[in-house]
Amino acid sequence: MCDLCCIESVKNRMLSRRTLLGGGAAMAATAVAAAMPASAASISISNGKPVDLTHELYPEFPTYFGESGFKMDPKFTYAKEKFNLNVLTINEHTGTHIDAPLHFSENGQSVSEIPVENLVVPLSVIHIHGKASENPDAQVTPEDIKAWISKHGPLPKGGCVAMHSGWSKHVATRKFRNADDKGKMHFPGFHVEATKMLIEDGNTIGMAVDTLSLDHGPSGDFATHYAWLPTNRWGIENITNLEKLPAKGATLFVGAPKHRDGSGGPARIMAIA
Amino acid sequence: MCDLCCIESVKNRMLSRRTLLGGGAAMAATAVAAAMPASAASISISNGKPVDLTHELYPEFPTYFGESGFKMDPKFTYAKEKFNLNVLTINEHTGTHIDAPLHFSENGQSVSEIPVENLVVPLSVIHIHGKASENPDAQVTPEDIKAWISKHGPLPKGGCVAMHSGWSKHVATRKFRNADDKGKMHFPGFHVEATKMLIEDGNTIGMAVDTLSLDHGPSGDFATHYAWLPTNRWGIENITNLEKLPAKGATLFVGAPKHRDGSGGPARIMAIA
Repeated sequence: MCDLCCIESVKNRMLSRRTLLGGGAAMAATAVAAAMPASAASISISNGKPVDLTHELYPEFPTYFGESGFKMDPKFTYAKEKFNLNVLTINEHTGTHIDAPLHFSENGQSVSEIPVENLVVPLSVIHIHGKASENPDAQVTPEDIKAWISKHGPLPKGGCVAMHSGWSKHVATRKFRNADDKGKMHFPGFHVEATKMLIEDGNTIGMAVDTLSLDHGPSGDFATHYAWLPTNRWGIENITNLEKLPAKGATLFVGAPKHRDGSGGPARIMAIA
Repeated sequence: MCDLCCIESVKNRMLSRRTLLGGGAAMAATAVAAAMPASAASISISNGKPVDLTHELYPEFPTYFGESGFKMDPKFTYAKEKFNLNVLTINEHTGTHIDAPLHFSENGQSVSEIPVENLVVPLSVIHIHGKASENPDAQVTPEDIKAWISKHGPLPKGGCVAMHSGWSKHVATRKFRNADDKGKMHFPGFHVEATKMLIEDGNTIGMAVDTLSLDHGPSGDFATHYAWLPTNRWGIENITNLEKLPAKGATLFVGAPKHRDGSGGPARIMAIA
Protein backbone atom coordinates (compact mmCIF):
# COMPACT_ATOMS: atom_id res chain seq x y z
CA MET A 1 0.00 0.00 0.00
CA CYS A 2 1.53 3.34 -1.00
CA ASP A 3 1.79 6.36 1.29
CA LEU A 4 -1.28 8.14 -0.06
CA CYS A 5 -3.38 4.97 -0.28
CA CYS A 6 -2.60 4.31 3.35
CA ILE A 7 -3.60 7.83 4.40
CA GLU A 8 -6.88 7.57 2.51
CA SER A 9 -7.55 4.25 4.13
CA VAL A 10 -6.92 5.69 7.57
CA LYS A 11 -9.19 8.65 6.93
CA ASN A 12 -12.03 6.50 5.66
CA ARG A 13 -11.76 4.02 8.49
CA MET A 14 -11.55 6.83 11.02
CA LEU A 15 -14.67 8.48 9.65
CA SER A 16 -16.63 5.24 9.79
CA ARG A 17 -15.24 4.53 13.25
CA ARG A 18 -16.19 7.97 14.53
CA THR A 19 -19.71 7.51 13.17
CA LEU A 20 -19.96 4.11 14.79
CA LEU A 21 -18.77 5.45 18.12
CA GLY A 22 -21.26 8.30 17.94
CA GLY A 23 -18.86 11.20 18.19
CA GLY A 24 -15.49 9.64 17.89
CA ALA A 25 -12.12 10.62 19.20
CA ALA A 26 -13.11 14.00 20.58
CA MET A 27 -15.83 12.49 22.73
CA ALA A 28 -13.54 9.69 23.83
CA ALA A 29 -10.95 12.25 24.88
CA THR A 30 -13.49 14.19 26.92
CA ALA A 31 -14.79 11.04 28.54
CA VAL A 32 -11.40 9.95 29.78
CA ALA A 33 -10.00 13.35 30.72
CA ALA A 34 -11.19 12.81 34.28
CA ALA A 35 -9.05 9.66 34.47
CA MET A 36 -5.87 11.54 33.54
CA PRO A 37 -3.26 10.26 35.97
CA ALA A 38 -0.94 12.28 38.14
CA SER A 39 2.77 11.67 37.67
CA ALA A 40 4.84 9.69 40.13
CA ALA A 41 5.42 11.46 43.44
CA SER A 42 9.21 11.20 43.56
CA ILE A 43 12.09 9.15 42.25
CA SER A 44 14.19 6.77 44.31
CA ILE A 45 16.78 4.44 42.84
CA SER A 46 19.19 2.22 44.74
CA ASN A 47 22.43 1.07 43.11
CA GLY A 48 20.98 1.14 39.60
CA LYS A 49 22.71 0.72 36.26
CA PRO A 50 21.63 2.43 33.03
CA VAL A 51 20.28 0.31 30.18
CA ASP A 52 19.98 1.83 26.71
CA LEU A 53 16.57 1.10 25.16
CA THR A 54 17.32 2.99 21.94
CA HIS A 55 18.12 1.61 18.50
CA GLU A 56 20.85 3.31 16.49
CA LEU A 57 19.27 5.44 13.75
CA TYR A 58 20.42 5.26 10.11
CA PRO A 59 18.85 5.92 6.71
CA GLU A 60 17.72 2.32 6.17
CA PHE A 61 16.02 2.02 9.57
CA PRO A 62 12.62 0.41 8.85
CA THR A 63 9.60 2.73 8.94
CA TYR A 64 5.85 2.31 9.11
CA PHE A 65 5.29 3.75 5.64
CA GLY A 66 8.31 1.96 4.17
CA GLU A 67 10.14 5.10 3.04
CA SER A 68 13.42 6.24 4.57
CA GLY A 69 12.78 8.62 7.47
CA PHE A 70 16.34 9.80 8.15
CA LYS A 71 19.09 11.47 6.16
CA MET A 72 22.43 12.93 7.24
CA ASP A 73 24.36 15.38 5.06
CA PRO A 74 27.84 16.51 6.10
CA LYS A 75 28.15 20.32 6.20
CA PHE A 76 31.66 20.49 7.61
CA THR A 77 34.18 17.63 7.86
CA TYR A 78 37.30 17.12 9.92
CA ALA A 79 39.26 16.38 6.76
CA LYS A 80 38.45 19.78 5.31
CA GLU A 81 37.43 22.19 8.08
CA LYS A 82 38.96 20.40 11.10
CA PHE A 83 35.58 19.69 12.67
CA ASN A 84 32.55 17.54 11.83
CA LEU A 85 29.00 18.87 11.58
CA ASN A 86 26.01 17.38 9.77
CA VAL A 87 22.54 18.50 8.77
CA LEU A 88 19.81 15.96 9.53
CA THR A 89 16.50 15.46 7.76
CA ILE A 90 14.14 13.48 9.99
CA ASN A 91 10.60 12.24 9.73
CA GLU A 92 9.47 12.75 13.34
CA HIS A 93 8.20 9.18 13.66
CA THR A 94 11.41 7.36 12.76
CA GLY A 95 13.67 5.10 14.79
CA THR A 96 13.13 4.73 18.52
CA HIS A 97 10.79 7.67 18.99
CA ILE A 98 8.02 9.23 21.01
CA ASP A 99 4.46 9.81 19.86
CA ALA A 100 3.34 13.02 21.57
CA PRO A 101 -0.38 13.32 22.29
CA LEU A 102 -0.57 15.82 19.40
CA HIS A 103 0.38 13.07 16.91
CA PHE A 104 -3.17 11.72 16.90
CA SER A 105 -5.18 14.59 18.32
CA GLU A 106 -6.20 18.11 17.43
CA ASN A 107 -5.16 19.84 20.63
CA GLY A 108 -3.13 17.37 22.66
CA GLN A 109 0.26 18.17 24.16
CA SER A 110 3.00 18.74 21.63
CA VAL A 111 6.32 17.02 22.33
CA SER A 112 7.64 20.21 23.96
CA GLU A 113 4.56 20.50 26.19
CA ILE A 114 4.77 17.09 27.89
CA PRO A 115 5.59 17.85 31.54
CA VAL A 116 9.07 16.66 32.52
CA GLU A 117 7.47 14.76 35.43
CA ASN A 118 5.80 12.57 32.80
CA LEU A 119 9.16 11.68 31.20
CA VAL A 120 10.83 10.07 34.22
CA VAL A 121 8.51 7.30 35.29
CA PRO A 122 8.28 3.77 36.69
CA LEU A 123 8.39 1.12 33.97
CA SER A 124 6.37 -2.10 33.84
CA VAL A 125 7.22 -4.70 31.20
CA ILE A 126 4.59 -7.11 29.88
CA HIS A 127 6.14 -10.11 28.13
CA ILE A 128 4.21 -11.46 25.17
CA HIS A 129 7.24 -12.74 23.26
CA GLY A 130 6.01 -16.30 23.75
CA LYS A 131 2.73 -15.87 21.89
CA ALA A 132 4.27 -13.35 19.47
CA SER A 133 6.81 -15.93 18.33
CA GLU A 134 3.89 -18.08 17.20
CA ASN A 135 1.60 -15.30 15.95
CA PRO A 136 3.06 -12.07 14.56
CA ASP A 137 -0.34 -10.38 14.92
CA ALA A 138 -0.37 -11.01 18.68
CA GLN A 139 -1.55 -8.19 20.93
CA VAL A 140 -1.30 -7.15 24.57
CA THR A 141 -4.81 -7.97 25.80
CA PRO A 142 -6.72 -7.08 28.97
CA GLU A 143 -5.88 -10.61 30.16
CA ASP A 144 -2.15 -9.90 29.82
CA ILE A 145 -2.52 -6.78 31.95
CA LYS A 146 -4.62 -8.61 34.54
CA ALA A 147 -1.97 -11.33 34.72
CA TRP A 148 0.77 -8.71 35.28
CA ILE A 149 -1.24 -7.05 38.08
CA SER A 150 -2.04 -10.41 39.63
CA LYS A 151 1.66 -11.23 39.83
CA HIS A 152 3.20 -7.81 40.59
CA GLY A 153 0.46 -5.72 42.21
CA PRO A 154 -1.14 -2.48 40.97
CA LEU A 155 0.44 -0.69 38.02
CA PRO A 156 2.69 2.08 39.36
CA LYS A 157 1.21 5.59 39.49
CA GLY A 158 2.32 7.78 36.58
CA GLY A 159 4.11 4.87 34.94
CA CYS A 160 4.79 3.43 31.50
CA VAL A 161 3.65 -0.02 30.41
CA ALA A 162 5.90 -1.60 27.77
CA MET A 163 5.14 -4.50 25.46
CA HIS A 164 8.04 -6.89 25.06
CA SER A 165 7.16 -8.95 22.00
CA GLY A 166 10.72 -9.90 21.08
CA TRP A 167 10.28 -8.02 17.78
CA SER A 168 13.31 -5.79 18.36
CA LYS A 169 15.67 -8.53 17.18
CA HIS A 170 14.10 -8.38 13.71
CA VAL A 171 14.95 -4.70 13.21
CA ALA A 172 17.54 -5.25 10.48
CA THR A 173 15.38 -7.71 8.52
CA ARG A 174 12.18 -7.64 6.50
CA LYS A 175 10.40 -9.36 9.37
CA PHE A 176 10.35 -6.09 11.34
CA ARG A 177 7.68 -4.68 8.98
CA ASN A 178 6.65 -8.19 7.92
CA ALA A 179 4.48 -7.00 5.04
CA ASP A 180 2.46 -9.61 3.15
CA ASP A 181 1.73 -9.72 -0.57
CA LYS A 182 -0.93 -7.04 -0.22
CA GLY A 183 1.32 -4.73 1.79
CA LYS A 184 -0.46 -5.41 5.09
CA MET A 185 2.03 -5.60 7.93
CA HIS A 186 2.14 -8.22 10.67
CA PHE A 187 3.76 -7.36 14.01
CA PRO A 188 2.51 -7.16 17.62
CA GLY A 189 0.93 -4.17 19.38
CA PHE A 190 -1.52 -3.12 22.10
CA HIS A 191 -5.14 -4.23 21.66
CA VAL A 192 -7.52 -1.29 21.92
CA GLU A 193 -9.39 -3.00 24.77
CA ALA A 194 -6.14 -3.28 26.76
CA THR A 195 -5.54 0.38 25.97
CA LYS A 196 -8.96 1.36 27.29
CA MET A 197 -8.32 -0.75 30.38
CA LEU A 198 -5.10 1.18 31.08
CA ILE A 199 -6.94 4.48 30.66
CA GLU A 200 -9.70 3.41 33.02
CA ASP A 201 -7.19 2.07 35.55
CA GLY A 202 -5.76 5.60 35.57
CA ASN A 203 -2.25 4.85 36.78
CA THR A 204 -0.44 4.70 33.45
CA ILE A 205 0.79 7.72 31.50
CA GLY A 206 2.83 6.13 28.71
CA MET A 207 2.96 2.96 26.63
CA ALA A 208 5.91 1.54 24.74
CA VAL A 209 6.26 -1.12 22.05
CA ASP A 210 9.26 -2.86 20.49
CA THR A 211 7.53 -2.69 17.09
CA LEU A 212 6.73 0.02 14.55
CA SER A 213 3.34 0.96 15.98
CA LEU A 214 1.30 1.06 19.20
CA ASP A 215 -1.39 -0.70 17.12
CA HIS A 216 -0.48 -4.13 15.80
CA GLY A 217 0.54 -4.43 12.17
CA PRO A 218 -2.80 -5.40 10.58
CA SER A 219 -4.61 -2.46 12.18
CA GLY A 220 -5.98 -0.13 9.58
CA ASP A 221 -7.76 2.30 11.87
CA PHE A 222 -5.09 3.12 14.48
CA ALA A 223 -7.69 2.40 17.17
CA THR A 224 -5.08 2.28 19.95
CA HIS A 225 -3.42 5.53 18.82
CA TYR A 226 -6.82 7.29 18.75
CA ALA A 227 -7.87 5.93 22.13
CA TRP A 228 -4.58 6.65 23.91
CA LEU A 229 -2.92 9.81 22.62
CA PRO A 230 -5.87 12.26 22.84
CA THR A 231 -5.92 11.67 26.63
CA ASN A 232 -2.52 13.42 26.84
CA ARG A 233 -0.73 10.13 27.28
CA TRP A 234 2.34 9.39 25.16
CA GLY A 235 3.68 6.39 23.28
CA ILE A 236 7.12 5.04 22.41
CA GLU A 237 7.69 2.96 19.30
CA ASN A 238 10.72 0.83 18.31
CA ILE A 239 12.03 0.48 21.85
CA THR A 240 14.66 -2.22 22.37
CA ASN A 241 16.51 -4.20 25.07
CA LEU A 242 13.38 -4.76 27.19
CA GLU A 243 14.55 -8.32 27.83
CA LYS A 244 17.32 -6.83 29.97
CA LEU A 245 14.84 -5.33 32.44
CA PRO A 246 12.75 -6.71 35.28
CA ALA A 247 8.96 -6.82 34.81
CA LYS A 248 8.69 -4.30 37.65
CA GLY A 249 10.98 -1.81 39.35
CA ALA A 250 12.96 -0.08 36.58
CA THR A 251 12.81 3.69 36.13
CA LEU A 252 12.34 4.95 32.57
CA PHE A 253 13.92 8.13 31.21
CA VAL A 254 12.32 9.43 28.04
CA GLY A 255 14.81 11.73 26.34
CA ALA A 256 12.13 13.23 24.10
CA PRO A 257 13.04 16.02 21.71
CA LYS A 258 11.62 19.43 22.60
CA HIS A 259 10.82 21.22 19.36
CA ARG A 260 7.89 23.61 19.43
CA ASP A 261 4.59 22.16 18.13
CA GLY A 262 6.24 18.81 17.40
CA SER A 263 4.12 15.66 17.18
CA GLY A 264 7.01 13.51 18.40
CA GLY A 265 10.50 12.60 17.32
CA PRO A 266 13.50 10.32 17.78
CA ALA A 267 14.13 10.03 21.50
CA ARG A 268 16.90 8.62 23.66
CA ILE A 269 15.20 6.10 25.91
CA MET A 270 17.05 4.73 28.93
CA ALA A 271 16.10 2.79 31.99
CA ILE A 272 17.81 2.46 35.33
CA ALA A 273 17.46 -0.99 36.83
CA MET B 1 31.75 37.35 10.37
CA CYS B 2 30.09 35.15 7.74
CA ASP B 3 29.95 31.37 7.84
CA LEU B 4 32.86 30.82 5.47
CA CYS B 5 35.01 33.60 6.95
CA CYS B 6 34.56 32.01 10.35
CA ILE B 7 35.55 28.57 9.07
CA GLU B 8 38.65 29.99 7.40
CA SER B 9 39.54 31.79 10.58
CA VAL B 10 39.18 28.58 12.60
CA LYS B 11 41.34 26.63 10.17
CA ASN B 12 44.07 29.22 10.14
CA ARG B 13 44.13 29.60 13.88
CA MET B 14 44.09 25.84 14.32
CA LEU B 15 47.03 25.41 11.99
CA SER B 16 49.07 28.02 13.84
CA ARG B 17 48.02 26.55 17.18
CA ARG B 18 48.99 23.04 16.11
CA THR B 19 52.36 24.31 15.02
CA LEU B 20 52.81 26.13 18.30
CA LEU B 21 51.89 23.07 20.29
CA GLY B 22 54.27 20.94 18.29
CA GLY B 23 51.86 18.32 16.99
CA GLY B 24 48.49 19.65 17.96
CA ALA B 25 45.24 17.97 18.78
CA ALA B 26 46.32 14.44 17.90
CA MET B 27 49.25 14.58 20.28
CA ALA B 28 47.12 16.19 22.98
CA ALA B 29 44.60 13.37 22.62
CA THR B 30 47.30 10.74 22.95
CA ALA B 31 48.79 12.47 25.95
CA VAL B 32 45.56 12.51 27.90
CA ALA B 33 44.19 9.15 26.83
CA ALA B 34 45.69 7.59 29.90
CA ALA B 35 43.63 9.94 32.05
CA MET B 36 40.33 8.83 30.48
CA PRO B 37 37.96 8.41 33.40
CA ALA B 38 35.78 5.43 34.20
CA SER B 39 32.07 6.08 34.51
CA ALA B 40 30.28 6.21 37.83
CA ALA B 41 29.92 2.84 39.54
CA SER B 42 26.15 2.89 40.11
CA ILE B 43 23.23 5.26 40.47
CA SER B 44 21.40 5.95 43.69
CA ILE B 45 18.73 8.63 44.06
CA SER B 46 16.58 9.30 47.09
CA ASN B 47 13.25 11.07 46.73
CA GLY B 48 14.37 13.08 43.71
CA LYS B 49 12.37 15.30 41.36
CA PRO B 50 13.12 15.78 37.66
CA VAL B 51 14.27 19.19 36.44
CA ASP B 52 14.22 19.94 32.71
CA LEU B 53 17.51 21.51 31.58
CA THR B 54 16.43 21.79 27.93
CA HIS B 55 15.38 24.88 25.99
CA GLU B 56 12.44 24.56 23.62
CA LEU B 57 13.72 24.44 20.03
CA TYR B 58 12.25 26.64 17.27
CA PRO B 59 13.51 28.09 13.99
CA GLU B 60 14.69 31.37 15.51
CA PHE B 61 16.69 29.72 18.30
CA PRO B 62 20.05 31.55 18.35
CA THR B 63 23.00 29.68 16.84
CA TYR B 64 26.76 30.04 16.89
CA PHE B 65 26.96 30.86 13.18
CA GLY B 66 23.91 33.10 13.26
CA GLU B 67 21.88 31.13 10.72
CA SER B 68 18.73 29.21 11.59
CA GLY B 69 19.55 25.61 12.51
CA PHE B 70 16.03 24.17 12.70
CA LYS B 71 13.06 23.87 10.36
CA MET B 72 9.81 21.95 10.70
CA ASP B 73 7.62 21.15 7.69
CA PRO B 74 4.22 19.53 8.19
CA LYS B 75 3.81 16.37 6.11
CA PHE B 76 0.41 15.32 7.46
CA THR B 77 -1.99 17.44 9.53
CA TYR B 78 -4.90 16.58 11.77
CA ALA B 79 -7.12 18.96 9.80
CA LYS B 80 -6.54 17.03 6.60
CA GLU B 81 -5.34 13.50 7.37
CA LYS B 82 -6.54 13.18 11.00
CA PHE B 83 -3.02 12.94 12.38
CA ASN B 84 -0.02 15.26 12.67
CA LEU B 85 3.47 14.42 11.39
CA ASN B 86 6.34 16.76 10.51
CA VAL B 87 9.66 16.52 8.75
CA LEU B 88 12.52 18.24 10.59
CA THR B 89 15.68 19.75 9.16
CA ILE B 90 18.27 20.15 11.89
CA ASN B 91 21.82 21.40 12.09
CA GLU B 92 23.23 18.95 14.66
CA HIS B 93 24.63 21.73 16.84
CA THR B 94 21.42 23.64 17.43
CA GLY B 95 19.40 24.27 20.58
CA THR B 96 20.27 22.45 23.78
CA HIS B 97 22.54 19.83 22.27
CA ILE B 98 25.43 17.47 22.79
CA ASP B 99 28.87 17.75 21.21
CA ALA B 100 30.05 14.17 20.67
CA PRO B 101 33.82 13.61 20.76
CA LEU B 102 33.68 13.23 16.95
CA HIS B 103 32.58 16.86 16.57
CA PHE B 104 36.16 18.11 17.05
CA SER B 105 38.21 15.00 16.37
CA GLU B 106 39.04 12.65 13.56
CA ASN B 107 38.23 9.37 15.24
CA GLY B 108 36.47 10.17 18.50
CA GLN B 109 33.20 8.57 19.55
CA SER B 110 30.22 9.48 17.41
CA VAL B 111 27.03 10.38 19.25
CA SER B 112 25.78 6.80 18.85
CA GLU B 113 29.02 5.37 20.24
CA ILE B 114 29.05 7.18 23.60
CA PRO B 115 28.53 4.44 26.22
CA VAL B 116 25.19 4.76 28.00
CA GLU B 117 27.08 4.70 31.32
CA ASN B 118 28.57 8.05 30.29
CA LEU B 119 25.12 9.59 29.78
CA VAL B 120 23.76 9.14 33.30
CA VAL B 121 26.24 10.85 35.56
CA PRO B 122 26.68 12.94 38.71
CA LEU B 123 26.40 16.68 38.04
CA SER B 124 28.51 19.43 39.60
CA VAL B 125 27.51 23.05 39.02
CA ILE B 126 30.07 25.86 39.09
CA HIS B 127 28.47 29.27 39.53
CA ILE B 128 30.17 32.12 37.72
CA HIS B 129 27.01 34.20 37.17
CA GLY B 130 28.39 36.85 39.49
CA LYS B 131 31.49 37.66 37.45
CA ALA B 132 29.67 36.94 34.18
CA SER B 133 27.11 39.64 34.96
CA GLU B 134 29.98 42.13 35.02
CA ASN B 135 32.07 40.64 32.21
CA PRO B 136 30.41 38.75 29.35
CA ASP B 137 33.79 37.26 28.37
CA ALA B 138 34.16 35.61 31.80
CA GLN B 139 35.43 32.03 31.89
CA VAL B 140 35.47 29.09 34.27
CA THR B 141 39.10 29.14 35.46
CA PRO B 142 41.26 26.66 37.37
CA GLU B 143 40.63 28.83 40.44
CA ASP B 144 36.86 28.36 40.08
CA ILE B 145 37.33 24.59 39.98
CA LYS B 146 39.69 24.65 42.96
CA ALA B 147 37.14 26.71 44.90
CA TRP B 148 34.40 24.17 44.10
CA ILE B 149 36.59 21.26 45.24
CA SER B 150 37.61 23.13 48.35
CA LYS B 151 33.96 23.59 49.32
CA HIS B 152 32.40 20.31 48.11
CA GLY B 153 35.21 17.76 47.99
CA PRO B 154 36.60 15.86 44.99
CA LEU B 155 34.72 16.05 41.69
CA PRO B 156 32.52 12.95 41.37
CA LYS B 157 33.91 10.05 39.35
CA GLY B 158 32.51 9.89 35.83
CA GLY B 159 30.65 13.16 36.30
CA CYS B 160 29.72 16.30 34.38
CA VAL B 161 30.86 19.78 35.37
CA ALA B 162 28.44 22.52 34.34
CA MET B 163 29.08 26.24 34.04
CA HIS B 164 26.21 28.34 35.35
CA SER B 165 26.88 31.81 33.96
CA GLY B 166 23.29 33.03 34.07
CA TRP B 167 23.37 33.38 30.27
CA SER B 168 20.36 31.15 29.72
CA LYS B 169 17.98 33.99 30.54
CA HIS B 170 19.23 35.92 27.49
CA VAL B 171 18.25 33.17 25.03
CA ALA B 172 15.44 35.10 23.36
CA THR B 173 17.48 38.30 22.99
CA ARG B 174 20.50 39.50 21.02
CA LYS B 175 22.56 39.32 24.20
CA PHE B 176 22.71 35.51 23.91
CA ARG B 177 25.13 35.79 20.96
CA ASN B 178 26.16 39.30 22.04
CA ALA B 179 28.03 40.04 18.81
CA ASP B 180 29.96 43.30 18.61
CA ASP B 181 30.34 45.58 15.58
CA LYS B 182 32.96 43.25 14.10
CA GLY B 183 30.85 40.12 14.59
CA LYS B 184 32.92 38.85 17.52
CA MET B 185 30.70 37.29 20.15
CA HIS B 186 30.88 37.85 23.89
CA PHE B 187 29.54 35.18 26.25
CA PRO B 188 31.09 32.98 28.96
CA GLY B 189 32.73 29.57 28.54
CA PHE B 190 35.37 27.22 29.92
CA HIS B 191 38.97 28.46 29.91
CA VAL B 192 41.30 25.98 28.22
CA GLU B 193 43.43 25.80 31.38
CA ALA B 194 40.39 24.79 33.43
CA THR B 195 39.62 22.23 30.73
CA LYS B 196 43.12 20.77 30.95
CA MET B 197 42.81 20.72 34.74
CA LEU B 198 39.61 18.64 34.48
CA ILE B 199 41.31 16.23 32.08
CA GLU B 200 44.29 15.84 34.38
CA ASP B 201 42.05 15.43 37.43
CA GLY B 202 40.53 12.49 35.54
CA ASN B 203 37.15 12.29 37.26
CA THR B 204 35.07 14.27 34.80
CA ILE B 205 33.60 12.88 31.58
CA GLY B 206 31.36 15.73 30.40
CA MET B 207 31.14 19.51 30.53
CA ALA B 208 28.07 21.69 30.06
CA VAL B 209 27.57 25.40 29.43
CA ASP B 210 24.50 27.63 29.42
CA THR B 211 25.92 29.49 26.41
CA LEU B 212 26.43 28.76 22.70
CA SER B 213 29.90 27.25 23.04
CA LEU B 214 32.20 25.39 25.43
CA ASP B 215 34.75 28.09 24.51
CA HIS B 216 33.81 31.62 25.49
CA GLY B 217 32.50 33.93 22.78
CA PRO B 218 35.72 35.74 21.77
CA SER B 219 37.59 32.45 21.22
CA GLY B 220 38.64 32.07 17.65
CA ASP B 221 40.55 28.83 17.98
CA PHE B 222 38.09 26.57 19.86
CA ALA B 223 40.93 25.69 22.23
CA THR B 224 38.59 24.13 24.78
CA HIS B 225 36.76 22.07 22.13
CA TYR B 226 40.08 20.77 20.77
CA ALA B 227 41.45 19.97 24.22
CA TRP B 228 38.31 18.27 25.54
CA LEU B 229 36.47 16.37 22.81
CA PRO B 230 39.36 14.32 21.33
CA THR B 231 39.74 12.64 24.76
CA ASN B 232 36.32 10.98 24.22
CA ARG B 233 34.68 13.37 26.62
CA TRP B 234 31.46 15.12 25.58
CA GLY B 235 30.03 18.61 25.89
CA ILE B 236 26.56 20.12 26.26
CA GLU B 237 25.79 23.60 24.98
CA ASN B 238 22.76 25.82 25.64
CA ILE B 239 21.76 24.05 28.84
CA THR B 240 19.26 25.89 31.06
CA ASN B 241 17.72 25.90 34.55
CA LEU B 242 21.02 25.22 36.31
CA GLU B 243 20.00 27.74 38.98
CA LYS B 244 17.38 25.23 40.13
CA LEU B 245 20.03 22.66 41.05
CA PRO B 246 22.40 22.20 43.97
CA ALA B 247 26.14 22.67 43.33
CA LYS B 248 26.58 18.98 44.16
CA GLY B 249 24.38 15.92 44.32
CA ALA B 250 22.13 16.04 41.26
CA THR B 251 22.13 13.21 38.69
CA LEU B 252 22.26 14.23 35.04
CA PHE B 253 20.48 12.36 32.23
CA VAL B 254 21.76 13.16 28.77
CA GLY B 255 19.07 12.19 26.28
CA ALA B 256 21.51 12.32 23.37
CA PRO B 257 20.32 11.38 19.89
CA LYS B 258 21.71 8.11 18.54
CA HIS B 259 22.18 8.52 14.81
CA ARG B 260 25.04 6.62 13.22
CA ASP B 261 28.26 8.63 12.72
CA GLY B 262 26.62 11.76 14.20
CA SER B 263 28.81 14.52 15.62
CA GLY B 264 26.10 15.50 18.11
CA GLY B 265 22.55 16.77 18.07
CA PRO B 266 19.67 18.29 20.00
CA ALA B 267 19.37 16.36 23.26
CA ARG B 268 16.84 16.20 26.07
CA ILE B 269 18.80 17.03 29.19
CA MET B 270 17.25 16.37 32.59
CA ALA B 271 18.53 16.23 36.13
CA ILE B 272 17.13 14.54 39.19
CA ALA B 273 17.70 16.51 42.36
